[in-house]
Amino acid sequence: MNLILLSDADFISPTRVRLSGRRFKHIQEILKAQEGQHLTVGKINGLMGQGTVVSEETEQNLSFPRKRESTYIELEVKLDQKPPQALHLTLILALPRPPMLKRILFSAAMLGIKKIIILNFNRVEKSLWNSSVLKIAAMEEQLILGLEQAKDTVMPEVLLKKRFKPFVQDELPGLIKGKTALVAHPEKVVTGTTFSIKSRACHDFLLVIGPEGGILDFEISLLKEAGCQTLDLGPRILRTDSVLPLVVGRLF
Amino acid sequence: MNLILLSDADFISPTRVRLSGRRFKHIQEILKAQEGQHLTVGKINGLMGQGTVVSEETEQNLSFPRKRESTYIELEVKLDQKPPQALHLTLILALPRPPMLKRILFSAAMLGIKKIIILNFNRVEKSLWNSSVLKIAAMEEQLILGLEQAKDTVMPEVLLKKRFKPFVQDELPGLIKGKTALVAHPEKVVTGTTFSIKSRACHDFLLVIGPEGGILDFEISLLKEAGCQTLDLGPRILRTDSVLPLVVGRLF
Repeated sequence: MNLILLSDADFISPTRVRLSGRRFKHIQEILKAQEGQHLTVGKINGLMGQGTVVSEETEQNLSFPRKRESTYIELEVKLDQKPPQALHLTLILALPRPPMLKRILFSAAMLGIKKIIILNFNRVEKSLWNSSVLKIAAMEEQLILGLEQAKDTVMPEVLLKKRFKPFVQDELPGLIKGKTALVAHPEKVVTGTTFSIKSRACHDFLLVIGPEGGILDFEISLLKEAGCQTLDLGPRILRTDSVLPLVVGRLF
Repeated sequence: MNLILLSDADFISPTRVRLSGRRFKHIQEILKAQEGQHLTVGKINGLMGQGTVVSEETEQNLSFPRKRESTYIELEVKLDQKPPQALHLTLILALPRPPMLKRILFSAAMLGIKKIIILNFNRVEKSLWNSSVLKIAAMEEQLILGLEQAKDTVMPEVLLKKRFKPFVQDELPGLIKGKTALVAHPEKVVTGTTFSIKSRACHDFLLVIGPEGGILDFEISLLKEAGCQTLDLGPRILRTDSVLPLVVGRLF
């Protein structure tokens, strides 16, 4: 947690927040913050800035016998810095297994991706769509952890698309407009159509990462019809959670 | 497991292996391989090729009552392909916490890194050096999983260096010779000395990834004296396991 992310509900006055639970514990146990110490804070979808630890012993709780076990901490906050620039990359991800999904949501938020579309593919096990990791609160948890790691405040948007063909045919071409769309997929024959890294200009990208089992030929065809180019990452079969930072490293 | 990694001990004849345990289970339960099916195999530090599932019912075990529960599987193997090219990157890694270390060893092996040096830094908790993850067998397990993921056979070498200064002063300059050595570290002032991605030629790199808490100024100074340049990855603070593929994506 390199930044403490605040929500509206944390504010007890325009410049003061009261934190309990995970963040309180982190500030107390990991950061071991003392009164007057400055911590990096940020408001979800808002500005970042500084939070100063305020004495836990305000007049109200100076009671006897003194309570030693505080359950919250208060920070006086000053929010005056813009969050870092978003990464100009839309991620389309074949629904992976829950541990992998958690890791990729974390990682995508950390890398600055602001739009994540989770898509069905033929080789995605249907039962995965019932996973509790797909619940909004569970996904938000990982996204928040990713933002806290990277020092960012802007929550990514996550969309679930359970039907491959209608999404790729009807929605994807519109999403691709103005972007370079890439599918991480080894292309054996036609090298001419494969994306070349030379064109890594300062523009918008869209990246499709398929399922562990691979993308089927008809799926690749439909993705290409919608405007995607294939991006061959070499002979090694990389695990999904490494593909994302690796491609980000190539493009930006 | 995209490749089944074989060791000398698995061979019961020059062209036949007998597998039990994890690999047997994987072949039986995940791949659901039938007699005659071809699987990708490779010998540790040797060639890759094809393994053909041989009937479990050899003459010897056609006994009555028939044993239904086999505990091993045999493959007839033909090894005739070279493993993929190694990544020309030496990784120097501040010892991270055990779960992160496991993930990075996996990831480094998967990416094709063949030399990993685990180094002490000031902000590495001393107790981590007693971690059971640093035992050879535990590290090998992750490296093997990484090779199996990527379809590679060449085991990376892992060295442990518990003393920062002697290593950086006495050994690092020799290791750096002929390579471009980079430290993933945000450099605030001097931009001139920061590595520019323009020079990403087809040559050897050495990459230093510091501890989560950051690299201290005197450590950066010593690394620079030894021949390292800093590589600024931008304003976001990335988790160690994403730094490695991201930098690999940039350099190769």
